[in-house]
Amino acid sequence: MYFVKVYVTYKDSVLDPQGEAVKNAVHRLGYETVEDIRIGKYFEIQVSAEASAVEETIEGICDKLLANVNMETYRYEIEQLEGI
Amino acid sequence: MYFVKVYVTYKDSVLDPQGEAVKNAVHRLGYETVEDIRIGKYFEIQVSAEASAVEETIEGICDKLLANVNMETYRYEIEQLEGI
Repeated sequence: MYFVKVYVTYKDSVLDPQGEAVKNAVHRLGYETVEDIRIGKYFEIQVSAEASAVEETIEGICDKLLANVNMETYRYEIEQLEGI
Repeated sequence: MYFVKVYVTYKDSVLDPQGEAVKNAVHRLGYETVEDIRIGKYFEIQVSAEASAVEETIEGICDKLLANVNMETYRYEIEQLEGI
């Protein structure tokens, strides 16, 4: 069993209006030292495939479902769960 | 300048219906080896505070704005940006 953490973020060239709105809210709370906030998505995925198939599975899911590859980029970390 | 990555996730005891829906969609795409998906939020925050104030700033923002501490938990990683 593998435990995969996937991070989906906007590409740097894409504006993030939601992050901008959160930054403004943070400033109104008094945290003026916050210079920038960008918001992404985070997924924790458990996969029971063989080691060789995990990457292919994750990249397939990201490309087809979790990320809009025109505007977003993703990265992932694979951990093996012990004893399962 | 510090670069902080914040991960907000549901507590384990809280159901994640959005994750369940995504898991069903992933199965319909043919990725039957995916056992579980949980969805969280991911924030990339740049802070220009002194080192001693960064943790306090981040925890304040998370507690007040980014996470609903009744249902969600958060963790964060602080990196120092070089040369800024």
